[in-house]
Amino acid sequence: MIRKGDHVLLVSPEGKEFLVTVENGKLFGTHKGTIDIEQLIGKEYGCEIESSKGIPFKVVRPTIYDFIKRIKRQTQIIYPKDIGYILLRLNVQSGCRVIECGTGSGSLTMALAFAVKPFGRVYSYERRREFSQLARENLQRVELADYVEFKVKDGTEGFDEKDVDAVFIDVKVPEELVESAWKALKPGGPIGFLLPTTNQVSSLLRVLPESGFLTTEIVEILLRRYKTNPDRLRPDDLMNAHTGYLLFARKVT
Amino acid sequence: MIRKGDHVLLVSPEGKEFLVTVENGKLFGTHKGTIDIEQLIGKEYGCEIESSKGIPFKVVRPTIYDFIKRIKRQTQIIYPKDIGYILLRLNVQSGCRVIECGTGSGSLTMALAFAVKPFGRVYSYERRREFSQLARENLQRVELADYVEFKVKDGTEGFDEKDVDAVFIDVKVPEELVESAWKALKPGGPIGFLLPTTNQVSSLLRVLPESGFLTTEIVEILLRRYKTNPDRLRPDDLMNAHTGYLLFARKVT
Amino acid sequence: MIRKGDHVLLVSPEGKEFLVTVENGKLFGTHKGTIDIEQLIGKEYGCEIESSKGIPFKVVRPTIYDFIKRIKRQTQIIYPKDIGYILLRLNVQSGCRVIECGTGSGSLTMALAFAVKPFGRVYSYERRREFSQLARENLQRVELADYVEFKVKDGTEGFDEKDVDAVFIDVKVPEELVESAWKALKPGGPIGFLLPTTNQVSSLLRVLPESGFLTTEIVEILLRRYKTNPDRLRPDDLMNAHTGYLLFARKVT
Amino acid sequence: MIRKGDHVLLVSPEGKEFLVTVENGKLFGTHKGTIDIEQLIGKEYGCEIESSKGIPFKVVRPTIYDFIKRIKRQTQIIYPKDIGYILLRLNVQSGCRVIECGTGSGSLTMALAFAVKPFGRVYSYERRREFSQLARENLQRVELADYVEFKVKDGTEGFDEKDVDAVFIDVKVPEELVESAWKALKPGGPIGFLLPTTNQVSSLLRVLPESGFLTTEIVEILLRRYKTNPDRLRPDDLMNAHTGYLLFARKVT
Repeated sequence: MIRKGDHVLLVSPEGKEFLVTVENGKLFGTHKGTIDIEQLIGKEYGCEIESSKGIPFKVVRPTIYDFIKRIKRQTQIIYPKDIGYILLRLNVQSGCRVIECGTGSGSLTMALAFAVKPFGRVYSYERRREFSQLARENLQRVELADYVEFKVKDGTEGFDEKDVDAVFIDVKVPEELVESAWKALKPGGPIGFLLPTTNQVSSLLRVLPESGFLTTEIVEILLRRYKTNPDRLRPDDLMNAHTGYLLFARKVT
Repeated sequence: MIRKGDHVLLVSPEGKEFLVTVENGKLFGTHKGTIDIEQLIGKEYGCEIESSKGIPFKVVRPTIYDFIKRIKRQTQIIYPKDIGYILLRLNVQSGCRVIECGTGSGSLTMALAFAVKPFGRVYSYERRREFSQLARENLQRVELADYVEFKVKDGTEGFDEKDVDAVFIDVKVPEELVESAWKALKPGGPIGFLLPTTNQVSSLLRVLPESGFLTTEIVEILLRRYKTNPDRLRPDDLMNAHTGYLLFARKVT
Repeated sequence: MIRKGDHVLLVSPEGKEFLVTVENGKLFGTHKGTIDIEQLIGKEYGCEIESSKGIPFKVVRPTIYDFIKRIKRQTQIIYPKDIGYILLRLNVQSGCRVIECGTGSGSLTMALAFAVKPFGRVYSYERRREFSQLARENLQRVELADYVEFKVKDGTEGFDEKDVDAVFIDVKVPEELVESAWKALKPGGPIGFLLPTTNQVSSLLRVLPESGFLTTEIVEILLRRYKTNPDRLRPDDLMNAHTGYLLFARKVT
Repeated sequence: MIRKGDHVLLVSPEGKEFLVTVENGKLFGTHKGTIDIEQLIGKEYGCEIESSKGIPFKVVRPTIYDFIKRIKRQTQIIYPKDIGYILLRLNVQSGCRVIECGTGSGSLTMALAFAVKPFGRVYSYERRREFSQLARENLQRVELADYVEFKVKDGTEGFDEKDVDAVFIDVKVPEELVESAWKALKPGGPIGFLLPTTNQVSSLLRVLPESGFLTTEIVEILLRRYKTNPDRLRPDDLMNAHTGYLLFARKVT
């Protein structure tokens, strides 16, 4: 049953999706008319609600994917296609302690918090206060900020934690963080990097071996969407052609 | 510190990886000589061990990714590139109750168990007893079987659970399971399908709307690996060009 | 040396390209000021010309690629990534006689004319008079229309030619043209199809064997562009994710 | 009608293809029995011939694509997916004079010869005599060697030709050839490069502007094949993930 404070995803007849928090007296405007959100309280997920123009919207449960895609952003974000793979490669699960360096707008932070809760912890470093603050707000909105320590700090002087389960680095010059990461990571543990350019990949590959890391894999992940007409099945016309290269390594002595 | 019963990943100088369980008196043969596994007890992860031929192997912590890639298989498995995205799309996290239909060799089962533990539960349906048994063994080997109920059953007559958080279907004729899935899934909740052929995608798209599901997205995910030489950075020569199309939907009334 | 009537490609400092025909008294407006085209007469290709705002434009030779990309279009066009492969698969060279069915805006027609000239011939069928006319104008503009017979005809009643070297079909229901194509094509010769949807591919595959064609290959071709900064090498953010599936076959008895 | 000396493509029932030259007294062995090639003389293309084991093979016309794919190779070859695009980008057509540097096994050479004949000319430079000889034999086998001058020479000291229509470079250190290429190419004309690594792309991008070339485009082309079962339409399991990056530029002054 839908309660006050719940998040709902409204889906228009053509498949446009709107993420809304349920509140008393809330009116939500769409291109297909206004929706009286308060009406949803006490209804069941999966139900339908009509806009002021009589257009029926479906009301479904948002997933962590939906939350990530809709964060407010001032930076390039990490996308779900990459996040899912990162979580597996870094072995992130409930109870883990994970360092992230380069909070940005908090898309990966959100997924990490989601995965480590309730007893794990994310330590998220970001040099720029405004990004850190934005990310915190993004996570607060979906009740995930409690699992994260947001730190306005350049990790180059070292991370505050020891023996963490995994580290993820998403900054311009990742080589500067390799030493800090090595010190904070538990022995034999996994580290990941997001690198937008091939030059960054080459530079990082040059320092990793001498820094006590064993390179595991470099990949790029491409996601291609299809249109949903069963009689004219075909990919979308456009796709995102690049987010970044993912490099994974492990700490050795 | 490495203990008896732990899993370790041995990495050869050229990057070949071997997943081994630490036991007393165990000798592990590789193309680079035999390794005396018992020696590892009491050592630290990240250390090095020499084979009988004097070749140094690095000893690192395996991740869930490594476990999934090395399951014993009698079927096509679901790959990490797809699994990571499925977990986000289905909102799987610690504590969730998830139905999987089409256990196969258990690669997704393993990832689901890893994600829902310790208090969640995976209900994994498989018609063929030998696959179910194989999957169970694959999960037992990595201590994840306790979070799963393996059921040797054709889900077409209905699933035993109600109000589960998510459903994933990986069978030849997924249309046959849509009704069972609808009944078992909580209102507004997410469902996913793996479909190897375009014909299956079209067939499923035709029945979904009339079955109480709202199609969210159809995607395919491509993963491309790069060689790790910083001065000759380039993709691998070959890649896996297809595993299957992923279709996601949500239960509506 | 650049002469009146020549085509030139003007390239702005940021790499924007403009295709222009050299004429007396012609002024060509760009976002970076107006260019006095007549000035180019007697200059050498590769030279620079200043716009009215003092911006230097490079003046280079257009290629058939540039002509194709800039045709006036009322339809989806066939792209160079596909055209290049089609020409090789259909063995098109100087002197060939080729049937194309579905002229559209004439992008493939233009490439075919370019390839078969001076002694070959393209027979281009199109049901809709306005498309055929548009394609003819597109080819006239680059002096290639003389190698093409534009026919406003539905090829379903049969093509007028016999024993042609190759056939290419780009229409909604290609099955309707398979018999006409078989009759017109020389024995053992190649045929190609562009098919936007997977349903069309399946439908065509079902009729080809019984129609005297041996399927050779079905492919899709993806082209990914890179940004040109040597210190930040990376793919463009977006790419064209789909044009169509290409199916090639050969006539057998 | 098939004549002595003709090339034919034999296609087995499962789609395996064999390229054979028709000669008197020739027996051709396949996995499905021996085929008496002489029998084909006087038959029509598209016909069927039985092997010694009673297996029917289809006999079709080979295309330039088939010749390229079957050249004898001692080097990595350039693939049709790239060749088709190169020909369009370099504006290669009947009558053109084109320089190629890095003959290799001659796959692009073959396509260039096919495209420029009968009155054009390909000047193909290769430092290693054995590769040049191999390429010549590959082209002789398909009657295309007459359109090519094979030169055993390192182009770094300059090319012998002036004012050629296009240049293509496929060597390890392409920067060394940029000056030679500039001198040989006609003003405003197109040049192309095949570059296997990202480091080569970056290096070349750094020297091009100061060498009198305007970079047009960097691309990579991916080709994905589909299985031909209409009821189980899906891509092949594996694909070639990388051949090289293609960089195109134009000569300016």
